[in-house]
Amino acid sequence: MAEVIPLDDPADPRVDDFRDLSSADRRPDLPGRKGLVIAEGVVVVQRMLDSRFTPSALLGVAKRYEALADDLAGLDVPYYQATAEVMAQVVGFHLNRGVLAVAPRPAELTVDEALDGARTVAVLEGVNDHENLGSMFRNAAGLGADAVLFGDRCSDPLYRRSVRVSMGHVLRVPFARIPQWPGGLELLRERGFQVIALTPNPAAVNLATAMTGERVALLLGAEGPGLTEEAMRATDIRARIPMSPGTDSLNVATAAAMAFYERVRTS
Amino acid sequence: MAEVIPLDDPADPRVDDFRDLSSADRRPDLPGRKGLVIAEGVVVVQRMLDSRFTPSALLGVAKRYEALADDLAGLDVPYYQATAEVMAQVVGFHLNRGVLAVAPRPAELTVDEALDGARTVAVLEGVNDHENLGSMFRNAAGLGADAVLFGDRCSDPLYRRSVRVSMGHVLRVPFARIPQWPGGLELLRERGFQVIALTPNPAAVNLATAMTGERVALLLGAEGPGLTEEAMRATDIRARIPMSPGTDSLNVATAAAMAFYERVRTS
Repeated sequence: MAEVIPLDDPADPRVDDFRDLSSADRRPDLPGRKGLVIAEGVVVVQRMLDSRFTPSALLGVAKRYEALADDLAGLDVPYYQATAEVMAQVVGFHLNRGVLAVAPRPAELTVDEALDGARTVAVLEGVNDHENLGSMFRNAAGLGADAVLFGDRCSDPLYRRSVRVSMGHVLRVPFARIPQWPGGLELLRERGFQVIALTPNPAAVNLATAMTGERVALLLGAEGPGLTEEAMRATDIRARIPMSPGTDSLNVATAAAMAFYERVRTS
Repeated sequence: MAEVIPLDDPADPRVDDFRDLSSADRRPDLPGRKGLVIAEGVVVVQRMLDSRFTPSALLGVAKRYEALADDLAGLDVPYYQATAEVMAQVVGFHLNRGVLAVAPRPAELTVDEALDGARTVAVLEGVNDHENLGSMFRNAAGLGADAVLFGDRCSDPLYRRSVRVSMGHVLRVPFARIPQWPGGLELLRERGFQVIALTPNPAAVNLATAMTGERVALLLGAEGPGLTEEAMRATDIRARIPMSPGTDSLNVATAAAMAFYERVRTS
């Protein structure tokens, strides 16, 4: 049973891991510093509890404890219970969602662990927008993609905003870093994946006909620059989403969603 | 030829339409007040110039005038040229994009005008998030949807944030308000549209098989509440995007993108 501990003093050091969440240099989720993972709100906290990220503490109002009581039963973790005002003083701003959980980072998964049993995976290059990363994981979870792999120059998917935008799915959809880029794409090919580059180039093959593999890895680059030529060359085929002329590329998470959807559209 | 007018005094009343853009009660794009439409950045300003929204003035730095000179040739509109510092004092914050255009609202299109020649349209109910509205128009433009219609309780699509997130496509993809809700859906049926409700309900027909009409209107509700039962009942069929169990519904703009994609996937 989670232990409910009343918290009246916002300066209490027991909630230091929740302190100054939006302070650029002190925030506890910076990978180079404490590197903690923060879940906000009942639904995301529930997803954390159902993930490989084990919370070391929760901070929340009484009402949110009630909503989480069943999920917390049988867990040995402190729930620091505070008023909304005290919480605001700890985290540095008023938090509508009313509850936070904090977890240390477990060891990262290897590519093999992330690919275990996977049929559809996204592979990202240069995606350095935390919101886009979060949306990517939300769409992967919603549309049945199995894993996300990171090539060069991607942001930290466990940044607080990514966790929130993903609705907690970044904690549950497996992800891993590809050790060499783009050479490490060979790891996917060895494991039977068709490696497909997504590009707005109208000369590329239509996505619907390009995806022939039983296992598919979809390479996506950031909006604007897109994939590097080196990454493109390391793929089996270049595929395009049918786009209207004169428009921009889609948001990278939306483009990924099209490809995930194409894999499950008749299921 | 647009006339370049040097602007040194941030209090100059000639740029009042650009003033206090983020001030909740004074901002000039509030529908109940001036109701102006603001385009930010070179690409969005270009889309405005290529739309039915005719700018009455521009405010920008010298470098952005150079980028827009060809587009502005032949137009009789003042370009108030200022430094980034003076611009920041006018609009109330530092504006990376370096150029703004402002246009009065033209008369709204009628449903018939918006539907002219349309094959695929989105119909929204209760979508009151400006970012989602912007993404909806961006996805519509990118994936060849022809129009967006508004039922009950939707936000203003011409709010500055919507215009920006849409990358200016809200100025170009036709939209109109359905006069009665949900009874006005009959207007679509009379014009030969199959009216399809999108729902996460697993008992609904798969989207890929539901869309049989030559013309298709896709009804979408807000995340969370979804469509009202009254709106659902006014449709021809309920369709679902194949979703993984235990996940939330997709973001409404992403759900729309799936349906738009389904219409063009083999084109």
